[in-house]
Amino acid sequence: MAQARTSRHAVQQQMRRIFEEIVPFNRVLGLKVVSFDPKAPRVRFDMRPELIGNPSRQILHGGVISAVLDVAAGFAIHCAILDRHPPQARIEFPKMGTVDLRVDYLRPGRGRHFEATARVVRLGNRIAVTHMEMANDAGELIATGSAAYVVG
Amino acid sequence: MAQARTSRHAVQQQMRRIFEEIVPFNRVLGLKVVSFDPKAPRVRFDMRPELIGNPSRQILHGGVISAVLDVAAGFAIHCAILDRHPPQARIEFPKMGTVDLRVDYLRPGRGRHFEATARVVRLGNRIAVTHMEMANDAGELIATGSAAYVVG
Amino acid sequence: MAQARTSRHAVQQQMRRIFEEIVPFNRVLGLKVVSFDPKAPRVRFDMRPELIGNPSRQILHGGVISAVLDVAAGFAIHCAILDRHPPQARIEFPKMGTVDLRVDYLRPGRGRHFEATARVVRLGNRIAVTHMEMANDAGELIATGSAAYVVG
Amino acid sequence: MAQARTSRHAVQQQMRRIFEEIVPFNRVLGLKVVSFDPKAPRVRFDMRPELIGNPSRQILHGGVISAVLDVAAGFAIHCAILDRHPPQARIEFPKMGTVDLRVDYLRPGRGRHFEATARVVRLGNRIAVTHMEMANDAGELIATGSAAYVVG
Repeated sequence: MAQARTSRHAVQQQMRRIFEEIVPFNRVLGLKVVSFDPKAPRVRFDMRPELIGNPSRQILHGGVISAVLDVAAGFAIHCAILDRHPPQARIEFPKMGTVDLRVDYLRPGRGRHFEATARVVRLGNRIAVTHMEMANDAGELIATGSAAYVVG
Repeated sequence: MAQARTSRHAVQQQMRRIFEEIVPFNRVLGLKVVSFDPKAPRVRFDMRPELIGNPSRQILHGGVISAVLDVAAGFAIHCAILDRHPPQARIEFPKMGTVDLRVDYLRPGRGRHFEATARVVRLGNRIAVTHMEMANDAGELIATGSAAYVVG
Repeated sequence: MAQARTSRHAVQQQMRRIFEEIVPFNRVLGLKVVSFDPKAPRVRFDMRPELIGNPSRQILHGGVISAVLDVAAGFAIHCAILDRHPPQARIEFPKMGTVDLRVDYLRPGRGRHFEATARVVRLGNRIAVTHMEMANDAGELIATGSAAYVVG
Repeated sequence: MAQARTSRHAVQQQMRRIFEEIVPFNRVLGLKVVSFDPKAPRVRFDMRPELIGNPSRQILHGGVISAVLDVAAGFAIHCAILDRHPPQARIEFPKMGTVDLRVDYLRPGRGRHFEATARVVRLGNRIAVTHMEMANDAGELIATGSAAYVVG
């Protein structure tokens, strides 16, 4: 039991390291894992000058928003697949590729920090589909999206 | 006549400066304007370590691809609006906002440098729609997309 | 007061008549209004032989699903705009046009009847954005989508 | 040789029969195959009163447009897979499912008849992606789209 918990915890720490440190562009975005909960996985990042798209309005670049939603979706699928395994299982990270991504930009990306979450609405042997959303520190919805992935 | 040409050239130089230098996240992406031709506007960027999404495969982060396609689309709309003006007109940059963006990922983002272009398929008083594509230095299509913008 | 209620009710009856009877292709789909509640507007339709896409599997044609989600979105925007008016106002139906539509197909369209709903996540002077979903009579999610519209 | 040609022709006639006659909702749409050319597969349909979405403007329902684009995409993938086989091969129709669909509505659907075509931009063992477009009898582009499918 203790070992199982350790194992799951270890896998999460490995996932965190990959998402936060190993993937170079995630570091550019400054992404941090907030929650591994498969029902509400969350990542966050702080506003930083280099993430800005419109200097006079001081808002995020649209490409930052689409990039973060893509990462949030991939992270959610990893959490969902991890959650399927019995706790003591040896976990292999799935090979995944984004098939397509849609982003709806709802409000200007204004804020001090931002959180993104994703919900896996389809998880088959070959295809996973997610819904994503990103909010600022005032809780305002900045963007939503959906994406399809090949998995396995 | 000479003045008109100068004026258009001056506007293009201003656009280049905004796209390449003023927009902070475009600098992160390393975007350069290749052509202002409204029929085939082009931007390009070099592969760089921080743009990578998968270190073991050495391929671009999906978020880099979506960000570049979004920029290419906005750039193309600017070129199209610029092209509508008589050459001597005083040009104001349009206010624009991305409504939504779709990206289809066709091949892994492998290459030494990449070019993106966009075609404006609808340009009304309120809405513009573009088709975009990105290829690597071997001419392989990496991704395509479409996006809608509010303009004016 | 009574008159105001009558007025709102009258507008809803007019909307119902337009959606169910005046729009020819909605009749092909067999669409009926279930609820005008702006928080959860709903339309429904019954499975019928001519709506089938795959006869051997007896499932809905993908085009039926995308068509119904588009109608549900437009209906939700009408309900949201109606809800903004003071009850006694003379209501004019907004001019609207679909800019784009995305549909994610999650499960085969199997069922005896289906309901679709939509949520208006952005409602500006020019652009409205909605999220839609459709479920069968067993409550299974068949498809989700998002769409952008020009309004006003 | 003669037999091979017959065989390919026979497969095409079978495809035509499935698309035009066996799929019930394709009959509602009135779809006819114009070309099996894998480089430019084409379907067409006539404007008919029941396909209308806005009676006062006499334009196609948006759902007709999305449905036709979905069919055109599926048809193009069938043509592409058929084209891969040696002519004398025994051909099995692939099992396919639409993963997602995006439609950009560019102009009101006005015309006497309409043609749709699709280009397969990705055709792997598991995923196919297409770009679609639909024009009216005046050659005006009415809508474009892209879609992803699971195949095989």
